[in-house]
Formats: sequence, C-alpha cells, structure tokens
Amino acid sequence: MEDKCTMVISGSQLMSYISDFTTICWFMEPEFQEAVRRLHRVVGNAVVDDRYIVVGTGSTQLYQAALYALTSPGGPEPVSVVSASPYYSAYPEETDYLRSGLYKWAGDAYEFDKNGTGPYIEVVNSPNNPDGTLREAVVKNRGDEGKLIHDLAYYWPQYTPIIRPADHDIMTFTFSKSTGHAGSRIGWAVVKDKEVARKMSKFIEMSTLGVSKDSQQRAAKIMGVICDDYKNFKSDELFFEHTRRVMAERWERLRQVVDRNQVFSLPKYPKRYCLFSGELIEPYPGFAWLEAKEEEEEIDSQKVLRGCIKVQGRTGSRFGVAQKYVRVSLLSNEEVFNQFLERLSTINSISNGH
Amino acid sequence: MEDKCTMVISGSQLMSYISDFTTICWFMEPEFQEAVRRLHRVVGNAVVDDRYIVVGTGSTQLYQAALYALTSPGGPEPVSVVSASPYYSAYPEETDYLRSGLYKWAGDAYEFDKNGTGPYIEVVNSPNNPDGTLREAVVKNRGDEGKLIHDLAYYWPQYTPIIRPADHDIMTFTFSKSTGHAGSRIGWAVVKDKEVARKMSKFIEMSTLGVSKDSQQRAAKIMGVICDDYKNFKSDELFFEHTRRVMAERWERLRQVVDRNQVFSLPKYPKRYCLFSGELIEPYPGFAWLEAKEEEEEIDSQKVLRGCIKVQGRTGSRFGVAQKYVRVSLLSNEEVFNQFLERLSTINSISNGH
Repeated sequence: MEDKCTMVISGSQLMSYISDFTTICWFMEPEFQEAVRRLHRVVGNAVVDDRYIVVGTGSTQLYQAALYALTSPGGPEPVSVVSASPYYSAYPEETDYLRSGLYKWAGDAYEFDKNGTGPYIEVVNSPNNPDGTLREAVVKNRGDEGKLIHDLAYYWPQYTPIIRPADHDIMTFTFSKSTGHAGSRIGWAVVKDKEVARKMSKFIEMSTLGVSKDSQQRAAKIMGVICDDYKNFKSDELFFEHTRRVMAERWERLRQVVDRNQVFSLPKYPKRYCLFSGELIEPYPGFAWLEAKEEEEEIDSQKVLRGCIKVQGRTGSRFGVAQKYVRVSLLSNEEVFNQFLERLSTINSISNGH
Repeated sequence: MEDKCTMVISGSQLMSYISDFTTICWFMEPEFQEAVRRLHRVVGNAVVDDRYIVVGTGSTQLYQAALYALTSPGGPEPVSVVSASPYYSAYPEETDYLRSGLYKWAGDAYEFDKNGTGPYIEVVNSPNNPDGTLREAVVKNRGDEGKLIHDLAYYWPQYTPIIRPADHDIMTFTFSKSTGHAGSRIGWAVVKDKEVARKMSKFIEMSTLGVSKDSQQRAAKIMGVICDDYKNFKSDELFFEHTRRVMAERWERLRQVVDRNQVFSLPKYPKRYCLFSGELIEPYPGFAWLEAKEEEEEIDSQKVLRGCIKVQGRTGSRFGVAQKYVRVSLLSNEEVFNQFLERLSTINSISNGH
C-alpha cells in the first residue's frame, strides 16, 4: 500500500505548536482524532462515542500521562503501580526512573492482591506483552482505592480475536502495533473522564509540549487509507485480513519447529469468537513466549538462545517471572523471521548446549 | 522556500524504532545528525566537532533529559535547579511536575548564589526567554557542586549577534526556534561527555521510546536546503538574512509605538560584533519584554494588555519577577503582529484604563 499511503508535507505546513486551542488536547490534529475514531469504528475494538481522545508520543508517553493524571495532586505516599506477572518489561522502569513522589512500581498484581495495601493503579495489558493472553484486572474488592489503565496496544485483529468493543476508563493504543509504524512515535488514549483527559494532555504539554504534527498527519493518512479500503472493498486483501494471514502463517511454522525439537513450549491459546471477522479464531501474538521444558527453574533461556543460535530474546526475569522463559519478537521482517526459525530448528537439547 | 523543502514519505518508510543500534542515540536518524552538524558549521553558533548529538522531542524533553543525566543515580536529597530571573516560565513546572526525588526547582540563580547550599544545576538561557539578554552562569565559586545546562534555543542569527561558537558541556537547540517548525517537536543537544549523552538518550528511551522519524527526516531536509543555499548562494536572500530582516523591521516598528505612547519601556540591547554576518549588530529577540513605566510595583501589565487591547501576554510573575512586566511574542504571523502594534498604539496611559 506504499503509494496510496504516501505523505507529502510542504515546507510551510504544520509549523505551529497549536492544532486547536478550543479543545482539551490542543496539540492534537483534528484529522488525527477523526481517523482514530473512524478506525476504531471500523474494527470495533473500542468504544469511542462520547469519549475523549488524547494523542501521545507513542503509548509509552501515554502510560506516564495516565499515571500522572491518576495521582496528581499527590498524597503523602506515592501510589502503588502494579501489573500481573509476566508484565510488560518496560513498566517498572517507566514508572520509577524519575523517582516520582506521585507513584512507584510495586510489582506483580497477584501479589498485591494478596498482600498489598493502600491506593493503587493496576495496568491491564491485553493481549498481554509478553505472553499474548487476554486479561482482566486482578486486584479485587478494594472499593475506590484502585484505578485502572488498560494498555490495549495489541488489541487488533491481526493478533487476537476482537471479543468485545473495549470500554474502560483509560485505554491506550499505538500506531506502532496497529499498522506497524513504530518510527512515528504516535499513540493515543481513549478516555472516559474529562478531567483525566485534561490532566493527561497537561502531562504531555509539560513533557514534550505536544506531539509531532508530521507524524499525526501521516498516521491520519494511513489509517484513512485502511478505512477507505474497508468502505469500498477495493483491495484484493484488506489490511487486517492480510496482516492476520501473515501472523497465522508465522505461528503455524513456529509451532511446527517448537513441537519438533521439544526444547521449549509455547502457550496454547483458546479459540474465541471474533466480532470483527465473524469467526471463531485463535490469537496470534506478536511475541513467542518460550518456556524451557527442562524442569530446573535455573535454566536461562535468553542465554541459551544467544549462546546456541545467536538469537536475541528478552529474559523472563525482566517480566517478573523465571528466566526459563524468554520472549522473542515475531514482528521482524520476513528474512529475519525465517532466519530465526531456521536457527531455532537446530536446537535439539538445552543441556548439551545445542 | 515551500517547494524546495517539500517532504515525501511513502507508506513503508521509517517504520522501525531503530535508526542505528551501533550509536549511543540509537533512535536518531543519521541524516538528522549530519544536518545538525552541518547547520552549526554554516552558522558558527556552536562547536560540534568531537561532540555527541542527542535528538529529542523538542528542547522541552531535552531539558528534562539533561536533568536526569546530571542527577542519576540520585543522592539522598534532590538536586537544586536554578536559573537567573527573569527565567523561562516553563522551567519550574517542567522540573517539578513529577515530584522527582532526583531534582527540584529552587528558583532564581542570583538568590541561590547568595543563600543556597549543596549540589545544584544552573540553566543558562541565552539569549534569554523572556528578556532577550545574552547570559552567562551566575552561581560562582562552588567547586564541583554545580553543573550547567545551556539552553540556546534562540542563539541564531535572526535573533542575536553570534558572538562566539558556543562551547559548553550541554547545549540544547530546537527546530522550533531555528527555522520556526514548532509543530514537528524536534530538538537536539550538543554534549561533551559520552556518559551524559548516553544517559540523556536513555531518558528519551524511557520517556517516549525515541523521537518521530518523520519529523527528524523533515528537519534534516529543511536544514539541508538552508545549508545548500549558503553553499551555492542561489537565493536572492538567504534564510538567516531574510528572517533577521523580518525581525529588524518588527523591532523598529515596535520601538516606535512603545516610544510614542510612553506607557511601557523595552530593554535596550548593546550592539555586538556578529561572527556570522561580520557586522556590529543589535539583538532582535523573539519576545517583547514590556515593563510598565508607572512606579507602583503592583501594576499588572498582563491584565492591562488583556483588558485594554485584548492582547494575550504572559505576566512577569510567571518568570519570577514583578507583574509590571509582561512578555508578548513577536513571532506571530504578519497579520497578528500588525494587529498587536495597531492595538498597542491605542494605549495612552495605564491608570485610566486606556
């Protein structure tokens, strides 16, 4: 779709800080907001009517904007931030790097449910990075002490059945995972409460004084082309059908290799009814979450992959679980993915190194 | 220069997070880095040989990246951050909004020089926003307790004589003020120390996982066109000569109006020798820093402008000084600037409201 999606910006366009001073998120391009709402309506993965949209420099920034919005003005103690393990490896670092007095990382949400006290924020990442599971909040029965952030970066039809239009207080999405344009650093939040949307926008103002308009316009254009194709049924194969097919093929080949060499196992995902496709379908996550089959907990699967086949994964310990787990991206280009499978197929046993 | 600067991006370009994993600032486009170095060499406003370049989402993000780099790992107490008043109104907020345990805003650098103690960071904004003065560090004789950040957003020939190639530990610049493209949210830092550059890059990774590649490429293109013109002398009027002429004309008209109605005064700026133009020239700051002439300190000049002539300025109290001062942007488009002057010329005295 390279040509249809080509973006042209003249030297004098998009120069101002301001997109629309009459709206809460004054640095958001109106075309971007429209495109986001339209894309969600086409896919049916999130409720956007009567919701506020906030644009961010990737969902990374929006996660931090949400923490700020839910904790400012701050109480005497920082609010605990938790997520069920295995949790996305960037949450701890993104929460704690500035040693904020507003919030602090408090680890696994299951653990907090059992032993934690006080006000908290639970991040629900669904489908979950690294393990691809569809998730719900874990911490229960805390009255109004808890707030939720739903990180729905991977809740798109190429990765998962769309089981319902998500309808939570704060939902974050990203251009990176919806269409693959990570380099543009564009994310957005769908927010129920006006005051939360205002504070998130204020955070982004203080953090980066807005979000690249060049990239907002490019995202709007590309989302528009995808939606137009669904409206006109003009393509031989529509965007999410195409990307889902690629993911399905990769997963089929991956499972063959993993089953054959009996060194790692992969999660099994139940089929669910997908409202978008109208079929019972399987999830095809963006990551392989590999677990070493040997029984000792001490096996370092990241080290095995690196040492034996020179493949870079991310160890389970970064996600709050044992290092017998390792996460490998399946979203590389075709050549890199083929190399990965070829090398993975050469591993026969962990103990003898190969 | 609209056509020469037109940017075309196809649908499949600039999709990855990564620009160059072999460099410290792995999310920086090589073309952007090259363009930045070339522009500084053409203008002569900063030493870039043997320096690291770090790209950021505007200089706003780079200011915060520098605070992080200079204070992490954190000591028992947050480090004091100071700047000589009148200081840029965004520094206090950008320093304190997350209640970081690493650093905290401590106000006026002159005050800190007299009464402050302990480790500190001084931000030197030169030419200074709001008052346009060329500045040097204010806090003296503290051994190695102090670190400096030089915010050189306005150190370009349209605003000021280039008195020397700046050569400080951390210098920040922005696309917004060099060419006027605020909407792209592109800034860069020129950094002497490798470890500081690494930490600043790490901050940007944790804050926004990189910087829009669309905007980096657009900035590279536009800077390249400007530099090519200086190389070939192809334009009737080169970029900085053109923009300087616009600023000079605005200042001449502004001073006429201000002198005539005798309500406000403007700073006088000494002529300095400009290495870029090879002439003795006057500064033409991006802001009018107006001071009410009435002697009472209580006069609220922002209120006067808003109430009498419906002009939005920013009060001196936001910059750490009396509210008889008000800052008005001179970087608006021609029509808005003309309106401003027309309305300003109708103010005859503050006390009777008009």
